[in-house]
Amino acid sequence: MSDSFSPGERSRAKRVHERAHYDRDSIYAVLDAGCLCHVGYVIDGQPYVTPTIHWREGDQVYFHGSSASRMLRTVKQGIPVCLTVSFMDGLVLARSGFHCSVNYRSAMLFGQAEAVEDEAEKLAALKTLVDGLLPGHWPQMRAPNDQEMKATTVCRLNIEEASAKIRTGPPKDDEEDYALACWAGVVPMRTVIDPPIRDPRLNDEIADPDYLQQIVQA
Amino acid sequence: MSDSFSPGERSRAKRVHERAHYDRDSIYAVLDAGCLCHVGYVIDGQPYVTPTIHWREGDQVYFHGSSASRMLRTVKQGIPVCLTVSFMDGLVLARSGFHCSVNYRSAMLFGQAEAVEDEAEKLAALKTLVDGLLPGHWPQMRAPNDQEMKATTVCRLNIEEASAKIRTGPPKDDEEDYALACWAGVVPMRTVIDPPIRDPRLNDEIADPDYLQQIVQA
Repeated sequence: MSDSFSPGERSRAKRVHERAHYDRDSIYAVLDAGCLCHVGYVIDGQPYVTPTIHWREGDQVYFHGSSASRMLRTVKQGIPVCLTVSFMDGLVLARSGFHCSVNYRSAMLFGQAEAVEDEAEKLAALKTLVDGLLPGHWPQMRAPNDQEMKATTVCRLNIEEASAKIRTGPPKDDEEDYALACWAGVVPMRTVIDPPIRDPRLNDEIADPDYLQQIVQA
Repeated sequence: MSDSFSPGERSRAKRVHERAHYDRDSIYAVLDAGCLCHVGYVIDGQPYVTPTIHWREGDQVYFHGSSASRMLRTVKQGIPVCLTVSFMDGLVLARSGFHCSVNYRSAMLFGQAEAVEDEAEKLAALKTLVDGLLPGHWPQMRAPNDQEMKATTVCRLNIEEASAKIRTGPPKDDEEDYALACWAGVVPMRTVIDPPIRDPRLNDEIADPDYLQQIVQA
């Protein structure tokens, strides 16, 4: 397997080429840095962008939900899909409006999705999701029963084309603007995890498990 | 103006109706809670989902970028667009895998975009963007010149249909599962802004302005 995806018409950067990456390491790093993605698909010429949770194994990106979901019923038919994952890392204040920017990481994937039909494979995929987000929770909780498995669709997107775009660092101003008396720099932002909130109906005798601490520190 | 958008075929929730909102207050609140959106559009049947910065004035949502951007060149032609804004607010750990969930807020807008052609209107829109994200920075920085204005496209999307989906609160388990010895609750997450990082080329005599403090506290 090549270390890079071959950029095609859909994924090749049209501009700001120094921000574009096609290697698997860069693209995987963006995909794996969070679990919120946006899935784009088309029904009768109308685009839809649906936020959902994703997880990855190799070149396969998974997402799931209710079998009644319009998004899942549509994309599992194997139509073209674009799946995008983005993070805003900061506001970039330049000395000119034109060079104000944001620091960000994004990955844009193109491919076709299919439903994971094999029951064992589907259960394994769901376990991978839970183990990835909530390590330690799967053995504690009740596993899905047959009815719940039927009510759940798991989709797998095979990455055909992909690119990442990443901007980091300070503003890049026009040389003559560096003399201006204007503050310039970056206001960084990031996502933090706060202390867990116990379900009000949780039995007092159930202590906060160690794995919660790991999630909060992750 | 009605306080709600009329849900149409594109925006009416197909399931989990208690999470769906069509009133302007709910939808505006999601749109205004952050500046990262995902714009969906179609080229030759292929969907694309491009992350970008958005801002809002009434029922108009704006986004901008290089005039060479594929996304902007495409959507300004007035084709159908879907613009989605999403926030993940927490992981919801239930006593069964089926009821594990996430707390989130999302808004999905449908409409057509057009380029803001009038120069004064375009400059005013860019000022609204900067004033919203970086209040105080516009008067300090160099305003865009003619060439930069030409190189920048500002698009305005008029919201035709819209919906918000919001999940909050603890897990909702099956009644019989509340007896299980499994931790349940919410692991909250949020975006924080860190202390500003001065551009290494910033003149030492330029102090951190007060408006930076406001951005960090916002």
